[in-house]
Amino acid sequence: MPQKTIICTVDVVLLCLRGSTLHVALWRRDRPPFEGSLALPGGYIHSEEDVDTLDAATRMLRAKTGLESPYLEQLGTFSGAGRDPRGWSISIAYYALVPVELIEADQAPGLILMPVDQLKGLPFDHKDIVLAAVQRLRNKSSYSSLPVHLCGERFTLPRLQAVYEAILGEPINKVSFRRKMDEFDMLEPVEGAFETGRANRPAQLYRLKAAYRQSLSVTPRAFLAGS
Amino acid sequence: MPQKTIICTVDVVLLCLRGSTLHVALWRRDRPPFEGSLALPGGYIHSEEDVDTLDAATRMLRAKTGLESPYLEQLGTFSGAGRDPRGWSISIAYYALVPVELIEADQAPGLILMPVDQLKGLPFDHKDIVLAAVQRLRNKSSYSSLPVHLCGERFTLPRLQAVYEAILGEPINKVSFRRKMDEFDMLEPVEGAFETGRANRPAQLYRLKAAYRQSLSVTPRAFLAGS
Repeated sequence: MPQKTIICTVDVVLLCLRGSTLHVALWRRDRPPFEGSLALPGGYIHSEEDVDTLDAATRMLRAKTGLESPYLEQLGTFSGAGRDPRGWSISIAYYALVPVELIEADQAPGLILMPVDQLKGLPFDHKDIVLAAVQRLRNKSSYSSLPVHLCGERFTLPRLQAVYEAILGEPINKVSFRRKMDEFDMLEPVEGAFETGRANRPAQLYRLKAAYRQSLSVTPRAFLAGS
Repeated sequence: MPQKTIICTVDVVLLCLRGSTLHVALWRRDRPPFEGSLALPGGYIHSEEDVDTLDAATRMLRAKTGLESPYLEQLGTFSGAGRDPRGWSISIAYYALVPVELIEADQAPGLILMPVDQLKGLPFDHKDIVLAAVQRLRNKSSYSSLPVHLCGERFTLPRLQAVYEAILGEPINKVSFRRKMDEFDMLEPVEGAFETGRANRPAQLYRLKAAYRQSLSVTPRAFLAGS
């Protein structure tokens, strides 16, 4: 083998929305380096059991957070001689989106939620990785169904609109929002299910169509759009 | 070290436009596995000399193609137990864009250009990697300065428009195209330089502004655009 051993890890940026603030779930490291520090959940690739790096990320999420199948996408690979004190390393980073209720339901007692805009120094280059994931989320939210994964299984359209507004950081016109959702064609009403208990009239509950659980509905982009 | 050795490589999808057809530059492998087959230029990460994987990709391009600093961007990481007969492997894939003249100028006698739409089976998962790069190029070309890297150092606006049309696969209105180029604000005229020798009146030559040699000019995307 003509190469020195390179450290191969997978890290997961697990994002959720608490109120209208985007949070990342951090894990307190239980071994060196940086033992005791908050960092991204991650670890070595296990070539004996992982089919590929996506499989490794899924295994790590399950082991460290109890989450089974959130929306998960490869973010990018971070690498080099300087990012890990143990040696030359590669981290294939993924990001996952989950409803905050799943984390707060105490499935994952070791996780600590931190607002992404208030991150202090994190070990390795984990802060860079988180910021790259947030940028990806904000960018993709402007043309896809991505933010829906921050909602629970059933949600009203006003709730989904609030999620888009929180991510994009600006108010959205209600009529235009609904037209956009029609265009995405990603939602279906849950028959007979309404949210009640507020002053307003009951609001229809929706859920994501099965086809869009692991792939996105995307607005195609014409070259001359916006010109 | 709690991990078995994982094969860590970098592969580069080098794309260029010959006529109006997108081509990928392949390299005839000079060692097993798949010795003698055409494949992407790539190789092991050298942890003793490469600063990171981008540095490894740059080194490989220089060694195998003679190209010094084309536009180069990380595409994604391909991994798993099955993609390389030598064992569990990771390939961090990059894509690069160059003017075809640079390749035809015989700087890189080992390279063979193949139309991306006519690829036969390639070793490893290299065909998947090429197709992912082509998809990325076509997608990004709809909202950014990316295709300019397929032109030479100096080019006319009609030439650049033809490049966009070749990538996007559709004709573009000339007035709208020029407005889009103004919006990108990525070009500057080369003072006193014109293309002559055709029946038309001489056409101004342009070049890319220095700021956009390794980063793109991008049209921001509003959530409600196109709705």
